[in-house]
Amino acid sequence: MNIIQTICDDLASIRERKPLIHSITNFVVMNETANATLCIGALPIMAHAVEEVEEMVGIASALVLNIGTLEPEWIKAMELAGRRANELNIPVILDPVGAGATRLRTESSKRLLENVKISIVRGNAGEVATLAGIAAEVKGVESIGASAAPDEIAKRFASAYGCTVAITGAVDAVSDGKRSAAISNGDVMLSKVVGTGCMSNVIVAAFAAVESDPFTAAVGGLAAFGAAGEIAAAESGNKPGTFASELYNALYALDAEKLGEMARVD
Amino acid sequence: MNIIQTICDDLASIRERKPLIHSITNFVVMNETANATLCIGALPIMAHAVEEVEEMVGIASALVLNIGTLEPEWIKAMELAGRRANELNIPVILDPVGAGATRLRTESSKRLLENVKISIVRGNAGEVATLAGIAAEVKGVESIGASAAPDEIAKRFASAYGCTVAITGAVDAVSDGKRSAAISNGDVMLSKVVGTGCMSNVIVAAFAAVESDPFTAAVGGLAAFGAAGEIAAAESGNKPGTFASELYNALYALDAEKLGEMARVD
Amino acid sequence: MNIIQTICDDLASIRERKPLIHSITNFVVMNETANATLCIGALPIMAHAVEEVEEMVGIASALVLNIGTLEPEWIKAMELAGRRANELNIPVILDPVGAGATRLRTESSKRLLENVKISIVRGNAGEVATLAGIAAEVKGVESIGASAAPDEIAKRFASAYGCTVAITGAVDAVSDGKRSAAISNGDVMLSKVVGTGCMSNVIVAAFAAVESDPFTAAVGGLAAFGAAGEIAAAESGNKPGTFASELYNALYALDAEKLGEMARVD
Repeated sequence: MNIIQTICDDLASIRERKPLIHSITNFVVMNETANATLCIGALPIMAHAVEEVEEMVGIASALVLNIGTLEPEWIKAMELAGRRANELNIPVILDPVGAGATRLRTESSKRLLENVKISIVRGNAGEVATLAGIAAEVKGVESIGASAAPDEIAKRFASAYGCTVAITGAVDAVSDGKRSAAISNGDVMLSKVVGTGCMSNVIVAAFAAVESDPFTAAVGGLAAFGAAGEIAAAESGNKPGTFASELYNALYALDAEKLGEMARVD
Repeated sequence: MNIIQTICDDLASIRERKPLIHSITNFVVMNETANATLCIGALPIMAHAVEEVEEMVGIASALVLNIGTLEPEWIKAMELAGRRANELNIPVILDPVGAGATRLRTESSKRLLENVKISIVRGNAGEVATLAGIAAEVKGVESIGASAAPDEIAKRFASAYGCTVAITGAVDAVSDGKRSAAISNGDVMLSKVVGTGCMSNVIVAAFAAVESDPFTAAVGGLAAFGAAGEIAAAESGNKPGTFASELYNALYALDAEKLGEMARVD
Repeated sequence: MNIIQTICDDLASIRERKPLIHSITNFVVMNETANATLCIGALPIMAHAVEEVEEMVGIASALVLNIGTLEPEWIKAMELAGRRANELNIPVILDPVGAGATRLRTESSKRLLENVKISIVRGNAGEVATLAGIAAEVKGVESIGASAAPDEIAKRFASAYGCTVAITGAVDAVSDGKRSAAISNGDVMLSKVVGTGCMSNVIVAAFAAVESDPFTAAVGGLAAFGAAGEIAAAESGNKPGTFASELYNALYALDAEKLGEMARVD
């Protein structure tokens, strides 16, 4: 079975099984990522207290760690939840938001990569390059440039850390060190709304909750999210406020058949 | 005067008096509940620091406690604010988000119910059943099922805790232990957007700010919110992003006359 | 060159240079202010940990401090970031949200004004009056009234603190103690959506990032934001949910030519 057929089946599984996705994420996108989780057919839960994260992740089907507005106490909660997820074989998705912009973000990302077995890292080229030891510039949470191409950064990161990595950009690059994919779904409007990268994390997590191969889950999540972005852009013109609403509409309406028609994976 | 007439008068009072609603709530829905508060005609304030909650609640007309992304320090602030509200006879609305999903949530809810005189508890069937000692399943913040019907859960909870309880679902059930009401306003689209339960809390709180009978306030808040949900659903089709915007439009436009026509309370 | 021409050039500079705006702000509006930052052509970053704020502000072009959901630890981070910004000559914009409503808010605002050199204070009449020692009433975060007119409050505040101040309301008043301006852009719909005052902060900050004169930056930011509000109101009727989306659309589409036609500065 080819990967397009598999990710279409995975999307149908998400809508049928409604997996619980536990996010420990940043304050800027909590609502938006929770809504994206719901729109793709999964259930969102946000819980960050060290007193409850281990118990909460125990009833979840995937865990998302996002350091966008990190504090030391939150990183501690992420480690606790991540280790418990590892014990239970629940996939962990990490978004190293702003790695490369400050030492705290770079070091916290590395600490999580060392102390938790991460299934999939999802970030932009600058963040992932920084963590792979490739020169790059990150301006806040924006990738300004890197000294290697995204597919090359992805391969080197995946080999170094032994996990799947998904770099989003004009063309998304996914690698698990052995396999590579380029996903050319998406639209420039996705860069005009805050938190679309963070939304892509939870969509990838929903795929990982029903798909045992992290590489396929990353491809499926990014293709589905990118396809929704294209549909939303067509509905909203050059208007970011309208696009934000249409993105939810498109995620909610996306089904396996439509994903099969639209997915562009090479 | 029947209850429909009373809640219509209450809605008119909210719009005239613009009561300040103090929320100590979760990170996911702060913006959305603040906007819902404003749309129904009240004024929102979010303040959670232990250093100011007692002073802030002193200028408010109702207090909402919502444990959706709880931490011990926030529960402490909720207790301080709740006790001060009790001293000042300001109604307190509690949403025990995720009670039943983790021990921290169940125990924090019970602690608030013990240490603060709550006017109205608003939750889903699983959360309220858990606190009433009735077997139920809560998946994150989603009620999966309970071993009793909502109206029965409501009656038992209200009797056990001596307060009004409002369980939202396909049909909402309100009870104060003596009186019961079923509100059949609402639309399934309300379950497709994150935080609509939390929004219903602040609408109930706005009613409680102008209505001395908690049972009537709970009925009024849920009927008004459900009516707005129906109007928004009719405007937005099966599109959750569009529905979210239309829900604010509908709350803002709802007036006493429209509420009187639409309220379905048995 | 008159001020209208200057602010039009500044808007073009923002869109060309994409300055990074570092906000330490409240939980209610983080997403909305980040989106407003992006729509005007700048880049948003939210970071509040004391461990990273000094480093993060070092790569930013303006810093926004907003005490809307303050805690002592956050005020400490604001002071650290503010002092570092001062060392680097990065402009600092302060929004004293709710000053006058509680002692914590009034005192934290004063402490920031004492310990950090603020370029521009942006608030409502009640908040600014309180800090200027003029009798006023603040109900949560809403200005209920003050014993002086906004332009008089602005002049007295600016003289007392030696910085530019921008009071938003039906007509906005800007003063740096020597110069005064009244900006009559805007629409009443801006008061029907939560966080529009906070959005105006980041728009002012984007202007301050490219414009060395704080008075001109404040005028430019408020005129641009007000103009966008007018365009959005015309597109959305009396509907706050629709208006919120249209406000992003309008900010995104606003260019120097349109701002030049619409700005009303006296």
